[in-house]
Parts: sequence; structure tokens; C-alpha cells
Amino acid sequence: MAYADSPKYTLLYHPGIPGRAEFIRLAFEATGTPYTDLANSASDGYATVRKACIDPDALSSLGDNPPVFAPPALQVKGEGKGGGDFLISQTSNILSYLGPRLGLAGEDEADKLWVGQVVSTALDLNNEVHDTHHPIAIADYYENQKDEALKKTVDFRKNRLPKFFGYFERMLKWNEKQQGERKREGVYLLGSQLTMADLVVWQVLDGLFFAFPEEMKARTEEFGLLLGDFYGSVKGEKGLKGYLESERRMKYSMGIFRHYPELDRQS
Amino acid sequence: MAYADSPKYTLLYHPGIPGRAEFIRLAFEATGTPYTDLANSASDGYATVRKACIDPDALSSLGDNPPVFAPPALQVKGEGKGGGDFLISQTSNILSYLGPRLGLAGEDEADKLWVGQVVSTALDLNNEVHDTHHPIAIADYYENQKDEALKKTVDFRKNRLPKFFGYFERMLKWNEKQQGERKREGVYLLGSQLTMADLVVWQVLDGLFFAFPEEMKARTEEFGLLLGDFYGSVKGEKGLKGYLESERRMKYSMGIFRHYPELDRQS
Repeated sequence: MAYADSPKYTLLYHPGIPGRAEFIRLAFEATGTPYTDLANSASDGYATVRKACIDPDALSSLGDNPPVFAPPALQVKGEGKGGGDFLISQTSNILSYLGPRLGLAGEDEADKLWVGQVVSTALDLNNEVHDTHHPIAIADYYENQKDEALKKTVDFRKNRLPKFFGYFERMLKWNEKQQGERKREGVYLLGSQLTMADLVVWQVLDGLFFAFPEEMKARTEEFGLLLGDFYGSVKGEKGLKGYLESERRMKYSMGIFRHYPELDRQS
Repeated sequence: MAYADSPKYTLLYHPGIPGRAEFIRLAFEATGTPYTDLANSASDGYATVRKACIDPDALSSLGDNPPVFAPPALQVKGEGKGGGDFLISQTSNILSYLGPRLGLAGEDEADKLWVGQVVSTALDLNNEVHDTHHPIAIADYYENQKDEALKKTVDFRKNRLPKFFGYFERMLKWNEKQQGERKREGVYLLGSQLTMADLVVWQVLDGLFFAFPEEMKARTEEFGLLLGDFYGSVKGEKGLKGYLESERRMKYSMGIFRHYPELDRQS
């Protein structure tokens, strides 16, 4: 595709895994926004990602943009300081940039900030999930930290999950009360339509269903509003439904969400 | 103090420790912005913090604001939806709200987003520091996870610290190149004056000097631009200098930054 015809947004991430980029993909997909998923669409795409986001010696990134700590990053055509492409990184930062631009940040400044606080909380949970299988060393194998992973995961399932789930349920109840009789087409965390908060919380829940099926089955009775109503409602959102059934939606494997039966709840 | 005369901003956090609220305090102090540090200034202040930010059953917070997952939170007088007080939470979210309002987000939209990505990266490092002494269970004692903490910290000092420090140094070098001959009064990560990025990175470095003095001494040779020039320059910033010497600046103790000699580099 010629540069002039290419989408405005390009996503830079590792190929083949949903990972932290999945939050950004969901925002594009739910709103029908065209984007290029570089490492998954061009044969030399990942070489560009590596140069822009992973090179530990890079003193700049894609022209005059500042260096990037780690992927994901988002390239925005023509929005850079000198008229070139703009590059930003860090998941929460990218989501806060895209939120208002894609209509996923609610209706006013207060909504936008509240969306930000739910997104931030859900990304913290996402990090904690990652740490269940890598509690000691991020760059080492799971097999070399299995004992610690089991200890960490037992605490995570017992203490952390209900704390996060309880908070998200309280948000749903708060919003229900705020909205009152206002027309809504689904179950939302904030306001009367889909926001980034719904997408990010949903994605973490979906990953948890994959990683800890037994634990999540047991928790669904306790947190039915979140794990039943909300989870199902977002999954059926127009725009999202088609994506989730498409080949663009990648399978969980060895990323953040991993299914190790020994870490799941034992019946 | 009568409500009408009280500062616009109130910080809600645990009393007696710098913690995650310190990033917010630094922003107020560096800019000479009046604020109330509720739990540290009123005898019943922490009761309000607990009710607004810690009660696991709260279905709203300070009037009609949504529930809060955990402190810190920021109360802004009269900025709420119905004209009441506005309450937001999550450190990165609060900092992104205050950044432009306190003149700590650079000069334009691109600066603001780049400040956000550096802040976000530094807060990730902050979380990793916390996990060095609590790799298994956040709510359990260090003494019950000492073996795992040592393993985690050895990896952190060896692999993670240099990755973060290298990135911050590359930001400093990138900015130096961008600014060229432009007049600056200090060493900054972005632009020609102090931003939230400088404050947050500085605070994490300062905590690291307390927690791991031997490791930081050894690293200072390698990362002189960051740990020498930048660290010293921000520390001497007008506004910050007085605060750091005041009694308002609390001592590190049993919070995020803890000095356990057995976890530090062994000479």
C-alpha cells in the first residue's frame, strides 16, 4: 500500500500474540477505525518495530521522536512536531490519546478522567496476572520460577482477584445508579455507551477466563454482574463481535495470559 | 480553615509515608501550588481518606464521585459534575490531570504525551521496586517472603535497573540534541524547563538511593548523566529545594522504598 493511502494509525508490537497491544486493537476494532498492525501485516514489519521500540541503544525513534522503553507504540501519520509521523508509547498513554479521538472517553472531561482511572486499574491487574507466572525474573523461564509462581498465584487468586472484581462491580453499580432511566444498549462501567474502560476491563477478564478457567467458574457466582452480565454484553458489542470471531483476533499462548493447570484453582 | 478559604486541591493518602502520593506532592511543591495533605494535616483526616478511598463496600466516593480502588486520590474543589467536589484516583491519571494545569506538561500536545510516557515508565519502575521486597504477597510481611525477595532483587538490580536507567539516559541525550543551544536552567528529560517527567523519575531515583545505596553508588559511574547531573539538577530546582529540606518531606520507612541491607549489592 502506498504511504498516502495507508491508515492514519500504525500499531507497533511483537507479532503473533495479543499482549498489551490487544487493548489498542480492541479500541480500533470496536470503533471500526482503520489501522495497520505492522508486525502482523508486513514481512519486514517486525524489523521496524525492533528498531523503533526495542533497540537498547536508540537515541531517537522513527525520525525525531524520543526513544521508546518497550512496545507497544503507536505511530500517527503526519502528527509529529515537524510534520512527520508522531510516535507515542506506554499502553495507558496510548489509550488516553486515542480515547477522545475514537469516541471512547465518555462525554466530558470528568468522564475522560474516570475512564482513565478504571483503565489504569485494569492495566495494574493485567500486570499482576503476568507476575503470577513470572514473580522473580521477567526474562527467565516459567520453569525456573515454578515454586514461587504457585505461591504468588495462590495469593493472587485468593486476595487480589476479589479485590479487583469487587471494585469493577462497584463501578457497574455506581454507573447504573447515575444513569437511572437513561437509554443504554449494554452494560457499561461509565456512562451510557462503550468506553475504553469497558474494553480494557473486558480484555483482562477474557484473558483470566483463559488462564484460570476453574477459578473464574467459581468466581462467576460471586461476581455475576461483572463476569456474567458485563462480560457478555461487551463481547456482543457491534464491531467487537465480528473482530472476536475473525482471524485477526490472536490466540492466547505464551504471553501475559497463560494456562498452566497447576496454577488454577484445584477442585 | 473555612471551606471557602481552603486550597483548591486536597490530597487523599495514608499518613506518615511518602508513598505514591509523593509524586503528587512534588508537583504541588515544585510549582508553589497550595494543597491540603488531608491525612497529615487534620486529626480526623485519615478517617475521610479511608471512607473515600479504602472502604471495600463503598458504592460512591465523596458525594457522587465513582468508587476508588486505592489511594492516592485527588479532590478538586467545585469541579465535580454537579458543582460539588471532583475526585480522581490512580497516580498516573492524577499526574496527567495536574500536568497542564500546573505548567508541568511541556509546551504542546506532543510534549504532554511524551511526558506521559516517561511518567508511566517511571511508575512501572516504582512498582518493580515495591515488588523486590514483596514478590509473593502484597498484604503479607517481608519476613515471610525473604528468600523470594532476595532472588527477585538480584534480578532487579542486575537486569531491570540498567534497562530503565539506560532508557532515561537516552531521553536526556535525545532532549539535549532537540534543545540544541536553547537556554535551559537545568538538566531535563523533555523540553527546556521542569516537567512531571523530571519529578517522577527524580523521586524514584531518590528512593533507590535510600533503598540500595551500594548498588546506586556502583551504578553512578556507569550512568553519570542520570544519577549525577540530572539527579542533582532536579534536587536543586527552585521550589523543590526548600520542600526537600522542610519537615513536610517525609522520611522513607516501610513503604515502597525500604532499606534492607541484605537486598543491596554486597561489596
